[in-house]
Amino acid sequence: MTDIAADDPVQLLKALIACPSVTPEAAGALDLLDSALSGLGFATTRLLFEGDGSYPVDNLFAIRGTSGRRLLFAGHTDVVPPGDLSDWTADPFTPREADGKLYGRGAADMKSGIAAFIAAAAAIPADAGTILLAITNDEEADAINGTDKLVAWAKGQGHAFDFAIVGEPSSAALLGDSIKIGRRGSFSGLITVEGIQGHVAYPHKANNPLPTLARIVSALSDAPIDQGTEHFPASNLEVTTIDVGNPVSNVIPARGTLRFNIRYNDLWTPDTLAEWVRDRIASVDIGEGKVRFEISGTPSRSFLSPLSAEVETLSAAIQAVTGRRPELSTGGGTSDARFIAQYGPVVECGLVGPSMHKADEHIALEDLTGLTAIYRAFMTRFFASGPA
Amino acid sequence: MTDIAADDPVQLLKALIACPSVTPEAAGALDLLDSALSGLGFATTRLLFEGDGSYPVDNLFAIRGTSGRRLLFAGHTDVVPPGDLSDWTADPFTPREADGKLYGRGAADMKSGIAAFIAAAAAIPADAGTILLAITNDEEADAINGTDKLVAWAKGQGHAFDFAIVGEPSSAALLGDSIKIGRRGSFSGLITVEGIQGHVAYPHKANNPLPTLARIVSALSDAPIDQGTEHFPASNLEVTTIDVGNPVSNVIPARGTLRFNIRYNDLWTPDTLAEWVRDRIASVDIGEGKVRFEISGTPSRSFLSPLSAEVETLSAAIQAVTGRRPELSTGGGTSDARFIAQYGPVVECGLVGPSMHKADEHIALEDLTGLTAIYRAFMTRFFASGPA
Repeated sequence: MTDIAADDPVQLLKALIACPSVTPEAAGALDLLDSALSGLGFATTRLLFEGDGSYPVDNLFAIRGTSGRRLLFAGHTDVVPPGDLSDWTADPFTPREADGKLYGRGAADMKSGIAAFIAAAAAIPADAGTILLAITNDEEADAINGTDKLVAWAKGQGHAFDFAIVGEPSSAALLGDSIKIGRRGSFSGLITVEGIQGHVAYPHKANNPLPTLARIVSALSDAPIDQGTEHFPASNLEVTTIDVGNPVSNVIPARGTLRFNIRYNDLWTPDTLAEWVRDRIASVDIGEGKVRFEISGTPSRSFLSPLSAEVETLSAAIQAVTGRRPELSTGGGTSDARFIAQYGPVVECGLVGPSMHKADEHIALEDLTGLTAIYRAFMTRFFASGPA
Repeated sequence: MTDIAADDPVQLLKALIACPSVTPEAAGALDLLDSALSGLGFATTRLLFEGDGSYPVDNLFAIRGTSGRRLLFAGHTDVVPPGDLSDWTADPFTPREADGKLYGRGAADMKSGIAAFIAAAAAIPADAGTILLAITNDEEADAINGTDKLVAWAKGQGHAFDFAIVGEPSSAALLGDSIKIGRRGSFSGLITVEGIQGHVAYPHKANNPLPTLARIVSALSDAPIDQGTEHFPASNLEVTTIDVGNPVSNVIPARGTLRFNIRYNDLWTPDTLAEWVRDRIASVDIGEGKVRFEISGTPSRSFLSPLSAEVETLSAAIQAVTGRRPELSTGGGTSDARFIAQYGPVVECGLVGPSMHKADEHIALEDLTGLTAIYRAFMTRFFASGPA
């Protein structure tokens, strides 16, 4: 690996694609980065996190510099499985250049972001400031033993940052047309209504839970959660399933369940949302029934980074390279940025992503070079702008 | 079989219990009745009905007399399965006397009613009037190739009746404390709401069918159907299940279904009830969704027999034998009387039924003798009362 030129994003990306690092198997990808970053003067730490109901995951922390402003770059080397190989023109783990494009699983999501950032960092003098990298090999699946624990570990070690960039593909159609300054959170819940089973011919001896369940569906669905905020649309709840599973037409069932998911903006935390759900349930006349509400899994938090001088610096760097000012977006699903947002301001800035997770995933080579130039231009300005 | 004394209800009942006539297997029970009735001067016809999505069923029609008033007795020889044999003290198909009781599957429901009626008919002079019997071997299961087709066939043959008795166990706690003069109907339906599937993060591209489904549940459940009638409680709807089966918390489902059952009184027919359901659905704002309503299976009709001179005659016969006047009830589930009610007045009058469908099913021998006396006293008065 020592013969990889860390300042060449194309060579670095090709080497990364050649590692079949489907979650959670790092398959040499973190070894390769460890080596490249060490060659650039970074101190690296490998961290295997495990437990909490998920598989063990390999992670990499790297830092160069002890003074000046502190920039954190975060990303993931793991990729989603290639799926049906017959859908691919060629082997997904053999990087392939054609027509100015580079093909391979992870080309867009997001080995390219890592390659571009490391190549950009290679051009920044080591004494310009402090650069930190937090790279995990599990963003695509459970995300339990990845970035969440990695940034918590870093904080425990006394590492902090003034600004963070996640290299996820954030551009919509053209490189730099969009960066993400926030993401909605996601909150899933399960509500069970218990009644008393009985025969439909003798309803006075039973207590049908389903009218109550229906009223709760209405109470959750009919009232808007909020009206949206400056950078986010209104929070929204969808009931995703209602299930009773009673096969018999003459029996009143004992219980019914509903599941819901809320995509929510920066007005809410999981705690305040859970309270909102409880209030909605309390607004319903549940009669003799019993209602149980559980949060499903771990809700992902919403976040919104402040529209700071650093966001402006990044926008200016993008404009300098591409001629376009990025839209400041909060759209899409969730990303690992939600874990970083707990410790400081974070944005997502990376390539164009429409081919990600698909067969023949690819990027334009000129976009890779462009993203490298954007990261470099940003770092130059960021470190020049003096202590935060 | 020719050695069975048809005028002895105990001997007849024991012989019937010894036939393991679990639906639809007659197991000799109808042969035995055929023989016993022929011995009493009845002309018998065996009818195998089949098709309409159910198994073939053996049925027996018998008639004695061509003039005078016409009494139809209806019943079934089939029994429900014995269940776990270890719950029984002895073999369910070996009649067993103990402590004044007779044990065996079908003792209460309703081989005893048939045995009592035939024994009673044996004591009625053949020229007193016309006695008809409609006995099926499928009342406990599908009931498709049983009484429904049997009484329709009889009508097609020109047979009519002035009054009908079904020998189902109609007594509540003591012999003759209750006869049933009507039954509620049962109507089941399936409602499907179709929306547009999509991702929870992009609800504007989808159309969640579940809030509409919940509103329909409320529209069906929250409004009373009626206030009851003189002889019936209020009609009642129960939603019996709601099912979506969406396992994924980030997907808005394409459709959801609910099933319901209505137990309804003599204010309604299946047609008017279906219209009521459609009206309730129409009261809901279904937005862009599509709602489909289907009737499940064949609804059973409600019926109420007129409080005629014959009901009074039966009540008087019961009082003469037991010292009690029966309550005129319309409670409980459905019975084959609903098929007979389409052709003339019908009541249910039989033994005490708490052990029916259970292990160690039994009757009190004195109740069997008592029921025979009731049927005989009724027939004597009924035929004496002249042309209807």
